[in-house]
Amino acid sequence: MRAVPALQNPPPAFVRFFLRARGPCSNTFVVNLPVQIGIGWYNPLVGIAWQTRKVNHMQIQASRLNLQLENPFKLSYGATTFRENVRVTISDGTFTGSGEAAVVPYYGETPDRILRYLTDPALADAIGEDPLLLDDMLNRLPPGESSAARAAVDIALHDLWGQHLGQPLYRLWGLNPARIPTSSFTVAMADSESHYRTHLRAARAYGLIKLKLGSGDWRTDWHMVEIAREEISAPLCVDANGGWTVEDTCAIMPRLAEIGVLFVEQPVARDDWDGWRALPAALPAGHPPLIADESVQGVESVLPLAGFADGINIKLAKCGGIRAARQMIILARALGLKIL
Amino acid sequence: MRAVPALQNPPPAFVRFFLRARGPCSNTFVVNLPVQIGIGWYNPLVGIAWQTRKVNHMQIQASRLNLQLENPFKLSYGATTFRENVRVTISDGTFTGSGEAAVVPYYGETPDRILRYLTDPALADAIGEDPLLLDDMLNRLPPGESSAARAAVDIALHDLWGQHLGQPLYRLWGLNPARIPTSSFTVAMADSESHYRTHLRAARAYGLIKLKLGSGDWRTDWHMVEIAREEISAPLCVDANGGWTVEDTCAIMPRLAEIGVLFVEQPVARDDWDGWRALPAALPAGHPPLIADESVQGVESVLPLAGFADGINIKLAKCGGIRAARQMIILARALGLKIL
Repeated sequence: MRAVPALQNPPPAFVRFFLRARGPCSNTFVVNLPVQIGIGWYNPLVGIAWQTRKVNHMQIQASRLNLQLENPFKLSYGATTFRENVRVTISDGTFTGSGEAAVVPYYGETPDRILRYLTDPALADAIGEDPLLLDDMLNRLPPGESSAARAAVDIALHDLWGQHLGQPLYRLWGLNPARIPTSSFTVAMADSESHYRTHLRAARAYGLIKLKLGSGDWRTDWHMVEIAREEISAPLCVDANGGWTVEDTCAIMPRLAEIGVLFVEQPVARDDWDGWRALPAALPAGHPPLIADESVQGVESVLPLAGFADGINIKLAKCGGIRAARQMIILARALGLKIL
Repeated sequence: MRAVPALQNPPPAFVRFFLRARGPCSNTFVVNLPVQIGIGWYNPLVGIAWQTRKVNHMQIQASRLNLQLENPFKLSYGATTFRENVRVTISDGTFTGSGEAAVVPYYGETPDRILRYLTDPALADAIGEDPLLLDDMLNRLPPGESSAARAAVDIALHDLWGQHLGQPLYRLWGLNPARIPTSSFTVAMADSESHYRTHLRAARAYGLIKLKLGSGDWRTDWHMVEIAREEISAPLCVDANGGWTVEDTCAIMPRLAEIGVLFVEQPVARDDWDGWRALPAALPAGHPPLIADESVQGVESVLPLAGFADGINIKLAKCGGIRAARQMIILARALGLKIL
């Protein structure tokens, strides 16, 4: 129904009226009557997507999306109790794609900066008129300073494109949805041990738990891991959010290895390149893999970590969207890096 | 019409009969009557792709494709007058995907080796039953020793997958077909200057000409370029097919730069890594870009050339197919390499 016929000229007005008047036809009784115009046949059932390509400008709408967190989210950068995300929809009159910008304060993102990007008329000009030319649209996006804002647009354009092709993205990538790996449930730090134990018990239903560490003292961090090991039987991974030095990492790592922690995320600070370079030689062999998170942003940030980190954490709001994320996956695999 | 509904169970026999009996309906008068079965509605117009996923085994057919060349193709490895390629089709009973294996003798490929791969029952087992799970099918392909054979299967499976989704591949990649770059027309070496001039004149209709060099003497090669420059006004690029030493390359390169040759392909021999490493320092600044061809095979061969070659020549028969080629493009761009 959404195939794109290779017809170059628009059909006459009465055919366009017929297409508009007919409305959605799936699962209803419809007489599919093709119409001969000029030298070709126009089949209304396959003409819808093609008709929608004649829009002049996409309609972009942005709005704040305030989220109250169920529990305060405490990590090495401090505690937060809410998120001020931004939603965007991009419509061409037939389909509407949705995207969202995750506002992570420690990346310098603010809702206002994101809204400025999304409401700039230059964005609509850049996107253009043809929702099927996904690559062109993404190539033309203004760079801007907010990768979260670009990611929101990238997500909405992928959504719009997929709707025109009548397929979910996993189909358009030839992927098997049954192979989606289990994600982890994150348990943040807490103000007291009893609160921490309460949060851990609430997480018992999940099959993989990520502990936020980086309290400022690696002994306190290790104590949290010990408590978690008491409360939870599921596999554990940990994320220091850059809260350790190389020495901290070397001190805690043998303990983490001994209890079988699956991986350790962002041990040293985001810009601590000396730390990343020192870690492979400083750590004992067979330590849990080191995954870079804050130290990895877009495609260009993957190569410098090869040989130091064992893997990278890819997030759409960091790298600017789905296309960049897929490029980073291919690049990371070629470099022998694991992907989170 | 080829959307894949999220229905898990096959429809009863009378619906299957109705689907089979109806035949192709595009551009014909069709009453689209949905049928209620169990708790869901089955719309025959969107049920075709889903029905085809119930095949048990793909049918793989391979055949020789002998091609007589219009002119002998003479390059540094010798002259050939024919090609013995292999065609493959993969059918699931509804759609048939086509692929072809290019048999390039200097990569050790033979039609027999390719046919052995394509007719091995292990191949059909590996491909499995679901033509929509492209990535799974490609992951399961037997590695084999012939990348041309794997490429033929990869191409046929992409073709089959695209037919099920009702879209050409460029649509499924979100690309703009108007951006396809101009390819070059290749003029091989000839047995005499008069033959060479005849071939060059026959190539005057093309907008970009690639000259095969590597005669064994760089002065002879330069003479061929001078003749080509006399006969042809279109931009030139050259391909030594590994026929030069570092010294040859340094001797001819300033001349090629002066007449504006766009790029130089595979100057040194395929395995001459010392040569590749020496070239950047040995050549004058601003020389035409060096593109590695024979020295590049699959995804794993891109990284070692970064910093030495300026670009890579990607061919499906070398890298094993379309998926690997797309991965190489992303990898090469991240490494700052040009792509041919």
